[in-house]
Amino acid sequence: MKLKKLALACGVATAMMSNTFAASTLEEVMKARGLTQKDILAAAKTYTPTGGRDEYLAFSSGGQSGQVIVYGIPSMRILKYIGVFTPEPWQGYGFDEESKAVLAQGRIQGKDITFGDTHHPAASETAGDYDGKYLFINDKANPRIAVIDLHDFETKQIVANPLYKSSHGGAFVTENTEYVIEAAQYPAPFKNEYVPLEKFNEEYRGGVTYWKFNREIGRLDPEKSFTIELPPYSQDLSDAGKGPSKDWSFTNSFCTERYVGGIERGRPPFEAGCSAKDTDFLHMINWKKAAELVAAGKADKINGMDVLSIETAVAEGVLFLVPEPKSPHGVDVTPDGTKIVVSGKLDTHVSVYSFEKLMAAVDAKKFEGKDPYGIPIISMQDALHHQVELGLGPLHSQFDSKPCVAYTSLYVDSMIARWDYCEGKVLDKVSIHYNVGHLMTMEGDTVNPDGKYLVSLNKLAIDRFNPVGPLHPQNHQLIDISGDKMELLYDMPIPLGEPHYVMAMKADKLKPAIRYKSGWDSRTDKRSPYKTRAGREKTVVTEGKVEVFGTTIRSHITPEIIEATVGDEVTIHLTNLERAQDETHGFSMYGQNVQLSIEPGKTVTAKFIADKAGVYPYYCTEFCSALHLEMEGYLLVKPKGYKDSGEKAEAGAVYTQADYDKQVKTNVETQAVIDSVVGFITSQNYQDFPPVVALVEDATDQLNFAQEAKAKSEAAAAKQDWQNGALWANQWWQYQVKAADIGLRAKTYLQQHDSKTIK
Amino acid sequence: MKLKKLALACGVATAMMSNTFAASTLEEVMKARGLTQKDILAAAKTYTPTGGRDEYLAFSSGGQSGQVIVYGIPSMRILKYIGVFTPEPWQGYGFDEESKAVLAQGRIQGKDITFGDTHHPAASETAGDYDGKYLFINDKANPRIAVIDLHDFETKQIVANPLYKSSHGGAFVTENTEYVIEAAQYPAPFKNEYVPLEKFNEEYRGGVTYWKFNREIGRLDPEKSFTIELPPYSQDLSDAGKGPSKDWSFTNSFCTERYVGGIERGRPPFEAGCSAKDTDFLHMINWKKAAELVAAGKADKINGMDVLSIETAVAEGVLFLVPEPKSPHGVDVTPDGTKIVVSGKLDTHVSVYSFEKLMAAVDAKKFEGKDPYGIPIISMQDALHHQVELGLGPLHSQFDSKPCVAYTSLYVDSMIARWDYCEGKVLDKVSIHYNVGHLMTMEGDTVNPDGKYLVSLNKLAIDRFNPVGPLHPQNHQLIDISGDKMELLYDMPIPLGEPHYVMAMKADKLKPAIRYKSGWDSRTDKRSPYKTRAGREKTVVTEGKVEVFGTTIRSHITPEIIEATVGDEVTIHLTNLERAQDETHGFSMYGQNVQLSIEPGKTVTAKFIADKAGVYPYYCTEFCSALHLEMEGYLLVKPKGYKDSGEKAEAGAVYTQADYDKQVKTNVETQAVIDSVVGFITSQNYQDFPPVVALVEDATDQLNFAQEAKAKSEAAAAKQDWQNGALWANQWWQYQVKAADIGLRAKTYLQQHDSKTIK
Repeated sequence: MKLKKLALACGVATAMMSNTFAASTLEEVMKARGLTQKDILAAAKTYTPTGGRDEYLAFSSGGQSGQVIVYGIPSMRILKYIGVFTPEPWQGYGFDEESKAVLAQGRIQGKDITFGDTHHPAASETAGDYDGKYLFINDKANPRIAVIDLHDFETKQIVANPLYKSSHGGAFVTENTEYVIEAAQYPAPFKNEYVPLEKFNEEYRGGVTYWKFNREIGRLDPEKSFTIELPPYSQDLSDAGKGPSKDWSFTNSFCTERYVGGIERGRPPFEAGCSAKDTDFLHMINWKKAAELVAAGKADKINGMDVLSIETAVAEGVLFLVPEPKSPHGVDVTPDGTKIVVSGKLDTHVSVYSFEKLMAAVDAKKFEGKDPYGIPIISMQDALHHQVELGLGPLHSQFDSKPCVAYTSLYVDSMIARWDYCEGKVLDKVSIHYNVGHLMTMEGDTVNPDGKYLVSLNKLAIDRFNPVGPLHPQNHQLIDISGDKMELLYDMPIPLGEPHYVMAMKADKLKPAIRYKSGWDSRTDKRSPYKTRAGREKTVVTEGKVEVFGTTIRSHITPEIIEATVGDEVTIHLTNLERAQDETHGFSMYGQNVQLSIEPGKTVTAKFIADKAGVYPYYCTEFCSALHLEMEGYLLVKPKGYKDSGEKAEAGAVYTQADYDKQVKTNVETQAVIDSVVGFITSQNYQDFPPVVALVEDATDQLNFAQEAKAKSEAAAAKQDWQNGALWANQWWQYQVKAADIGLRAKTYLQQHDSKTIK
Repeated sequence: MKLKKLALACGVATAMMSNTFAASTLEEVMKARGLTQKDILAAAKTYTPTGGRDEYLAFSSGGQSGQVIVYGIPSMRILKYIGVFTPEPWQGYGFDEESKAVLAQGRIQGKDITFGDTHHPAASETAGDYDGKYLFINDKANPRIAVIDLHDFETKQIVANPLYKSSHGGAFVTENTEYVIEAAQYPAPFKNEYVPLEKFNEEYRGGVTYWKFNREIGRLDPEKSFTIELPPYSQDLSDAGKGPSKDWSFTNSFCTERYVGGIERGRPPFEAGCSAKDTDFLHMINWKKAAELVAAGKADKINGMDVLSIETAVAEGVLFLVPEPKSPHGVDVTPDGTKIVVSGKLDTHVSVYSFEKLMAAVDAKKFEGKDPYGIPIISMQDALHHQVELGLGPLHSQFDSKPCVAYTSLYVDSMIARWDYCEGKVLDKVSIHYNVGHLMTMEGDTVNPDGKYLVSLNKLAIDRFNPVGPLHPQNHQLIDISGDKMELLYDMPIPLGEPHYVMAMKADKLKPAIRYKSGWDSRTDKRSPYKTRAGREKTVVTEGKVEVFGTTIRSHITPEIIEATVGDEVTIHLTNLERAQDETHGFSMYGQNVQLSIEPGKTVTAKFIADKAGVYPYYCTEFCSALHLEMEGYLLVKPKGYKDSGEKAEAGAVYTQADYDKQVKTNVETQAVIDSVVGFITSQNYQDFPPVVALVEDATDQLNFAQEAKAKSEAAAAKQDWQNGALWANQWWQYQVKAADIGLRAKTYLQQHDSKTIK
């Protein structure tokens, strides 16, 4: 068979080219692992060798995990879970006082909430394109929006919606991130009081909130935010307009039947009553004009927020409805802003609305009627560009770089459809595994989509992976959309949480920092008042309080002993003195629920009541250096009124002049090794390699520390204090070991990157 | 150039074989992505197409995240984060009452601890080989061990060590999992009281705890567990013997100098004083005999645990010390149990001890002396097989399937060494990126290692991935060890937590369940007393309490309305009625911090005080079906003494006979579609495909539900109750949609798996 012969030729060729590689050929590997040629092509399109970079970074909702997931495309490797609504100890999130303050902003009616149901991430935009600065994400369970700074990938702010009792249709941003849009979901009274379900039509409400974003400080401004009151329909997803439609936003809905279930009372369940009618309503809102109305004092304050009533919104002409096929999910504005694509899960069509037609109806005041709340309804026939039959369960659409090309997920069919939204024809379909919810193309919801890849966010994985118990991972499938046919490339399990929506940004738009300014409070983006410099560490004891201003550096925490009396409030501020990339230290303490993550430059604070006398070891939780395990200390909590016996400690080990001399000899030998490494590095064009320049700076720091320890050692020896002489000589050696470690990394880097000898 | 020509030939060949695939050839892809032939071979060795299975499952510590990470090898895809010491809402872990009870077992001196610093996972063993049943992992920060059942990948038990204030050297198991070993780390008094550091030598202590494992119930038994008191050295890693050494366990240590730092007082830091001597001590303990001594009443109870004092252990001949190169980390018993390999991070050698020699010294009572606590010391020269110079910073070793072949991580050199531990020679080295801590080979710490792959657990990633802020992911690098030269295959970022140790098990040893027995409490492994059957849902209201016995199924929660009075304790038990794989439902409620995960068959409980009158929507948090968003309900919390006005609700939408007729017509048409799908499936040999058989069962269930709804619809219509008639007719249709969804999945599966027509 021809195919087999060619495969064989290919295998042989490969074998000849890579004869050093574990004596195996591509052909043998394919045979052993049951891979096809198509698989190899998919592998080549996704595999990213060590040190390689992904072209896109995807920011995914983490669903009920409450976090945001960051992964690379096309490698489909998860790079980070960012703590957002749920405390996460690796990041110290919800453990240090600085991040506790962020989580506390998200309290609901004064109650701590320790999770979120994140749904839809949105990146900040400038002129309708991602600008790489901020990410916003909503919590459906407790209506909140979080702000993540893409400078350091940390959550900076949480705002709680004071009106809603759930919120699904956020976050979406307007064209220049003037506002972050958050729509309600399950109707409820705005006021935080009991209202019987009998008053559902009259007193339960939905809405769309526009959170004002202050780009200068990178925070949402609740004072300048407002809400449009809406009927008790279940508002769902939203999208902001673009280009011609940029002053408008669109929010769809389900259960415009306003059905109230009660299966336990013999009533048909919500699912029956909420999907009985053929159409629900697309809400069309002129947010620009609404903001002007609010500024002009036309809003009412409810729970501290400006609310534009339905009545005012209708009277001022900023709110309209358009029927849309029932139980829709995605509402997606085309890149040019001229059309709005709506998918009704229980219809086989996508509906493409023309913004021009919508505006024509608005301008002509041509309505087919009003809803029970007096909101004008534009008829479907006046608004539609066309409807396109795609298949069962159309759910969400994004766009290609090619004009008029859209992709829509088909939940029930378990397929992705590629189609032309201008001409209204289906171009291609591909099966996915299984039951796709949202989908995502590269920058596919901006004015300037990139095409290339599509990710299918499947809701069921079923049999795709090795089984790991009754709770399955989700399955994100990567699809190549660059060619005539869509091709499945990769299945990525999501190990934690159920993502709902993802957005992917060209990686080179992101310029994250690798360190903080020295002594930085990353949550307020300000210099920490507790910043502590090397040598300035101190412990301040006042009545009932112990406050530590400490530091961390390879490989010790200062202070190493903290003393307190039972009942004291203990506050520990730690500044990481490191400047080297990836030299994070952690800080964990027995029995006090303390776990901090201290990235280079950061200052963080742990606070607790030392409520029991005892001995509490603490240590660094990040494996930072060879002597990491020795990066330890003790909190000693004494009983009230404890009197020191004055007894002196007996040294565990005693050192003599011989020990001192031996250590010094070792150090001199070690220095010779270091000098040879330094000699190699400086003989190369190392300054052409920024990572090596950084390593050299770090190694130089360590050698300076070594000099300080050497001086202490020699001073002790001069006084024949061999105990301290030997110990400081060992500390001198410890710094040498750290310098050698860094130097060897630099040397290897140069060797692996073909550096050149310059002298 | 010859290489280029061959690559070209290969590309062309591939193009001919895959001309439908996005019009791209392997050659083009390689050029575009900068891949070498070696990269393609590495890609082929790791890439796993959709539905493919990994050969090994790795269980990794999640470090300070407090969780366990499960990933596949060689695909290096993370399949699950298992909640262990840290609450995790996706899994409902720490949110449902059942799992809260597990976390509560881990309280430290009565205090809730909401994180863990997981270090070393250990799988249960039978005859020294993994048996695929249980996983154990320690928490270093608060000395605890967790038990995870590999039947459902859930944490079942946490035990807190009542003596230690930190514990690093666990979990390790004896040859038949008689005991799970946990060694202390930073010395502290056993009693929970203040003891001044001046009494460090006299009253601070270390130890090794042997937790008795009861395999019948899959739980540790604290009553039958015991601890060997040890000197205040910082005990570190441990390993249990195998074969000839199976009755013994080995624990190394650092800081046998018993140095107490205090840099803030001008003393050299811990790192200097804890690494001053050339050697530390390997502890050698006869656990079998120790257990007999405890059974014979020779132990003392301290904080409720049996403790064998140093004095007794020495007198009875179960405890010995052997010098080992300073600041060691790994202590690793060879597969045949004859040798113990110790790596001293600050020495360039690994030390290979002979168990035979050790026993000869013990039997001959040949000691070089005693430590300050009277423990006999076997001399290095009497114990060593040999020492092998490997490089800078040797840290941890595991073994190959090939006799005498070991792998050792070199932290400072950033390399892996392959070497022969019988002959004492280095065989190969490979660079990693960067600063490897532990390493792991497939089943590499059992009596029967598999070889094949090695994972290098690098502590620094630095520049390996797209930057994601100052806090970097860890980097696990997969290395092919099947050939003559080790070859780096893949870089896997760890997105959450800093793993310390991983173990990998042949995937076919695992037989996880995909559903629970109906009404199952997964944490106690018993039928839940709150199990609720379909149709038996109820809400029990008593003074101050509302207790709900509810269910979930596609796509409604029963009950849909829950009423309470302010101040009530609300308890909600939910049973997931689903039997279908991956049909998990979630349950989240506004403002009450409730988030449950209810896998098929599971029963879980949420409990809270309804402390504020108001309206609290709840909903399913797993996208389970097309009508998932409509899977909702309301908790109504009424003010005390609230009187119902008796007002009737006005329906949001009114249905007529025409609506009823229209829906019925739709249903009849839908049934025809379903019948055609059923016709196709039953015309095929579908019974040869177990996944399809499961789908058919599920679809049949849905159609039975449809029949029930149909009956209700027809009964209402017969009474000319068109409102209920239409609504139940819609519910009938909803079940049809679910059946169609499943049927289509089954049909696609058969088409993609070349099913045959049988009739």
